[in-house]
Amino acid sequence: MKYQESHGGNIYGKNIRLDYSANLNPFHMPERVKKAIIDGIEEYYRYPDPDCKELILAIATAKGLLPEWIVCGNGAADLIYRYALSIKANKVLLLAPTFSEYEQAFRLAGTEICYYLLKEKHNFSVGEDILKEIPLVDGVVLCNPNNPVGNLIEPGLLQKIGKAIEEEGKFLFLDECFMEFTKYEKKYSSIPYIPMNKRIFVLKAFTKIYAMAGIRLGYGICSDMALLGKVKSAGAPWSVSGVAQKAGIAALKEIEYVKQAKEIIEEEREFLKKGLGKLGLFVYPSQANYIMFKAEEQLYEQLLGRGILIRQCGNYYGLGNEYYRVCIGKRRENQVLLEEIGFVIDKQEG
Amino acid sequence: MKYQESHGGNIYGKNIRLDYSANLNPFHMPERVKKAIIDGIEEYYRYPDPDCKELILAIATAKGLLPEWIVCGNGAADLIYRYALSIKANKVLLLAPTFSEYEQAFRLAGTEICYYLLKEKHNFSVGEDILKEIPLVDGVVLCNPNNPVGNLIEPGLLQKIGKAIEEEGKFLFLDECFMEFTKYEKKYSSIPYIPMNKRIFVLKAFTKIYAMAGIRLGYGICSDMALLGKVKSAGAPWSVSGVAQKAGIAALKEIEYVKQAKEIIEEEREFLKKGLGKLGLFVYPSQANYIMFKAEEQLYEQLLGRGILIRQCGNYYGLGNEYYRVCIGKRRENQVLLEEIGFVIDKQEG
Repeated sequence: MKYQESHGGNIYGKNIRLDYSANLNPFHMPERVKKAIIDGIEEYYRYPDPDCKELILAIATAKGLLPEWIVCGNGAADLIYRYALSIKANKVLLLAPTFSEYEQAFRLAGTEICYYLLKEKHNFSVGEDILKEIPLVDGVVLCNPNNPVGNLIEPGLLQKIGKAIEEEGKFLFLDECFMEFTKYEKKYSSIPYIPMNKRIFVLKAFTKIYAMAGIRLGYGICSDMALLGKVKSAGAPWSVSGVAQKAGIAALKEIEYVKQAKEIIEEEREFLKKGLGKLGLFVYPSQANYIMFKAEEQLYEQLLGRGILIRQCGNYYGLGNEYYRVCIGKRRENQVLLEEIGFVIDKQEG
Repeated sequence: MKYQESHGGNIYGKNIRLDYSANLNPFHMPERVKKAIIDGIEEYYRYPDPDCKELILAIATAKGLLPEWIVCGNGAADLIYRYALSIKANKVLLLAPTFSEYEQAFRLAGTEICYYLLKEKHNFSVGEDILKEIPLVDGVVLCNPNNPVGNLIEPGLLQKIGKAIEEEGKFLFLDECFMEFTKYEKKYSSIPYIPMNKRIFVLKAFTKIYAMAGIRLGYGICSDMALLGKVKSAGAPWSVSGVAQKAGIAALKEIEYVKQAKEIIEEEREFLKKGLGKLGLFVYPSQANYIMFKAEEQLYEQLLGRGILIRQCGNYYGLGNEYYRVCIGKRRENQVLLEEIGFVIDKQEG
């Protein structure tokens, strides 16, 4: 079997001209975030604030949350591991397919993994039948919008899940790292339930929406203070660098940048969806900044040979190598992607 | 009981004029490291290389090691946790006193902690009697030079420990994060034993010698590739930021900076030791860039009231609040520290 990347964005040691495999904001890091990083240069000799006080206050203010409910991490992925090590569950229910780090983290913590298999005939969406799985596990991990599909969970269903979790004393780890890219954040985000439901932990990232993947910054929100304390202790005390703290504070001021990115991604999602459809490829419904589609298995290698990296989904449990995920870029980038896929498909058929 | 810091360097939310509590190179971050961080600014939107290939190659070249033997982490502390979670020991032997993160990490991994109590009458040095403890545990953690004492383990004894570890199938986690500050690195470092002894894991930091604490970068060296694979998997794949990778590569070129810092710290250690002695304080032998001494318990608060932060050692298992650790600074900084301690002691006595 050929070597397969476990994640997108690993361009290192390859000859990549264009990377569509990492789901980042196509406008890259805001100028004022870059400036904040550079302006802080004389302070990085020091240990960073292990409590991220200033950054947490900035997040709390921006999101209308209590600072006590927030914990920061070395990227969102760091918090997945800390959470799994803190919650010490016997059994957890994961979606399949979904982001692979949940499984890695819970396995490390010695937790048994159960899967809720998303069905292709339902476009890989979460259905009401997930409710009957909850009594059989200690907790559930949901990714909303899900990765790599990009679809959202219906708010009504999510409310039922939250209620069941609370009543049965389970936990709900809810990854909303891509929620900012959807037009319907207010309707779909579970953050408003945090004050009344201690059993929900929402994961957020700076990585994606602010294109800060090389900086590493994410945070978690939860109203169970004892659990947050454990999450903080489940790893080194200085996990969030001084650079990330400066960058995060600056990023939260970028209201207009986020608004514009959201609008353009909304437009470009339609453009890319139509374009892939015209090439005869099946595209799954997405509300995120990436799209999943189905194509011939050799597409990955053929594009790679032309310096184009896309995410082949064969190592997602529940998917095969005929599934692909691409990040939505700016118009020109999307045009190039469509041209390149078109060129490769023509050659396949010719 | 009053609140006590678990580590040095936490100046946040306090009114600190001078910080002697964090053991960093007093020359702060090298200019070329700052430049490398700034020059890389356009690349931090991307995910960092999860394999740190370029950085690891630079470390391997600088230290004369095989790249396969190196694993990088989000600061040295990150690797303590990853190691503890990977080695899955039932019982580990720790020095007391020593750096507190070993205990935190092994507790998180569910490992039982045993202590080798260092005796004040032997200036807290490790003795031959540690050898008889090895059969009773799965492995040993040593800090060389030890923190907060600053003393080194005799090479002959260390060889015997290494041999016992190997023969009895135990592990040895050897923290050499402060080794660069000693004049006798070649004599005391265990890195030369790594090729022939798979059971040794040596921990190294960029934090201290290059004063990069806000960047977060450390690495581990071990010739057991299976263990290194586990250490890599025991946490998120992008734990080392793009900033840290750039900074680390630049730092390794700073040969002259390290040489000068070492020479000056050697001189200043003597200056500070004599100065503290003249103030009537007992100073423990140190070969590191910090010194431990004994004084009245109220010294901490009195200095803090004057904007001076030193490390009170009461929360080190095996020490009390009458022990203090101070970082060795440049001459002027050391003079100020001596003046301030002198002033406070005069007031105590007056």
